[in-house]
Amino acid sequence: MTLDDVQELINRGPYLSWLGLKVLDLGDDSIEVKATWRPEWVANPKLMQTHGGILAALIDFAADFALVKNIGRPVPTIDMRVDYHRLAKPGDLIVKGKVIKFGKQFSVCEAQIYDEAGALIASGRGSYITAPAPEAQKKPE
Amino acid sequence: MTLDDVQELINRGPYLSWLGLKVLDLGDDSIEVKATWRPEWVANPKLMQTHGGILAALIDFAADFALVKNIGRPVPTIDMRVDYHRLAKPGDLIVKGKVIKFGKQFSVCEAQIYDEAGALIASGRGSYITAPAPEAQKKPE
Amino acid sequence: MTLDDVQELINRGPYLSWLGLKVLDLGDDSIEVKATWRPEWVANPKLMQTHGGILAALIDFAADFALVKNIGRPVPTIDMRVDYHRLAKPGDLIVKGKVIKFGKQFSVCEAQIYDEAGALIASGRGSYITAPAPEAQKKPE
Amino acid sequence: MTLDDVQELINRGPYLSWLGLKVLDLGDDSIEVKATWRPEWVANPKLMQTHGGILAALIDFAADFALVKNIGRPVPTIDMRVDYHRLAKPGDLIVKGKVIKFGKQFSVCEAQIYDEAGALIASGRGSYITAPAPEAQKKPE
Repeated sequence: MTLDDVQELINRGPYLSWLGLKVLDLGDDSIEVKATWRPEWVANPKLMQTHGGILAALIDFAADFALVKNIGRPVPTIDMRVDYHRLAKPGDLIVKGKVIKFGKQFSVCEAQIYDEAGALIASGRGSYITAPAPEAQKKPE
Repeated sequence: MTLDDVQELINRGPYLSWLGLKVLDLGDDSIEVKATWRPEWVANPKLMQTHGGILAALIDFAADFALVKNIGRPVPTIDMRVDYHRLAKPGDLIVKGKVIKFGKQFSVCEAQIYDEAGALIASGRGSYITAPAPEAQKKPE
Repeated sequence: MTLDDVQELINRGPYLSWLGLKVLDLGDDSIEVKATWRPEWVANPKLMQTHGGILAALIDFAADFALVKNIGRPVPTIDMRVDYHRLAKPGDLIVKGKVIKFGKQFSVCEAQIYDEAGALIASGRGSYITAPAPEAQKKPE
Repeated sequence: MTLDDVQELINRGPYLSWLGLKVLDLGDDSIEVKATWRPEWVANPKLMQTHGGILAALIDFAADFALVKNIGRPVPTIDMRVDYHRLAKPGDLIVKGKVIKFGKQFSVCEAQIYDEAGALIASGRGSYITAPAPEAQKKPE
């Protein structure tokens, strides 16, 4: 899978498209994307911070897609942990995903979210099924 | 805080509004809401399943708002874990949140997501700051 | 597997024996055990609290063994989350495990730890491989 | 706090002593220790693998003690996640802890466990209270 293949895969997914994801870099076991801010992301109009659910989606996406070059498709998430470090102000976000341990049955990946100034906003990790999964459990292709 | 107060609080938040949240029940340490499906939630147009990031947002919301009657405002999430149990087909979701342990510094809450047929789609838990927090860390009011 | 079978399985494991585990109740998807306090559990001799690593071991054990009647053997842990609620003073602990979602590939279980007075000390959840696993990954039998 | 101060602190704790922890390196926001294998660590005498509860204790310890030079004492764990990557055969383990985000209220740290051959056995992260805590919640000093 090339960077363009992955971008095309993203563009076919309604929610990933809504997150405005642009692939910046694709490694063998890593990915870097930009997520494009939109007003619907705001949790509280007084503070204008991006909702934690958006950050969780970005962590899950980047951790999962760190496997995509190797596996050739997004894989089902078993579970995920997200740690919230700072409030994210309005603005695009940079998200990095990396494989911690690749396994034949399941794999563990981590991800970080940075704001445009380079501050760490959130980070986390998840477990992903990398066994050939039953049709019904597969994610977008 | 009454159920109507909480609904109003939700309605003022752009992202919570986008999730189409309707409060069904509000207890002293619990909450039940309905989330209204929308096409942007779809991860993969072939499978039509709701993206895990939407489910993560609902877990975080319900776990947090299980504290809202007691605290009087949403509180900052320290971290969160989500477990994915089944693919969610298009359709509204029922989300339940409950306090596991209320603490003066931080609290732990859990949440479950069910589909309209009552199947458990996802569940999780999170840690929340319940100490009086510095202004800058407060969430929507 | 009967309660006695499970107790025998525990007695054959050096670490589980060291934790002084006595099975109190075994359900189809649940277990209740007593863990016998020992001086080596103490984190800090001034506070005399049980170390969080002991509590983590008990959460992992009980969540895993909630599956044992169904699966017939302990299964490999994929990952685990533990939340610490209160300091555990010297004394035996009651640990309860329960299956949240049984799956053919992997399952999610939760567990709680109570002190002798019934106070919730810690709780958590983990993901477990319930697919027939390669020999090398199996846990004690 | 010097490396010797930290070693002395460890030696005063019954459970940390039982884990046979030797501090190899102490940085401003990191720590590296060796844990000394003992027969009681074994989960299953047939496989001889170290029990996941021992690995969880090591992750919690190293993540917590990554803060010790900065804070001057171990701090209470809010919650922790552990991912299990490989079975640990009998032998000493190397454990590395590092601060991900230092905060005035709470901090997030990660840790990795390696066997003597350098293979990654387990990894994880936890949230720790770094606010000046009420006396009763403090850990070993």
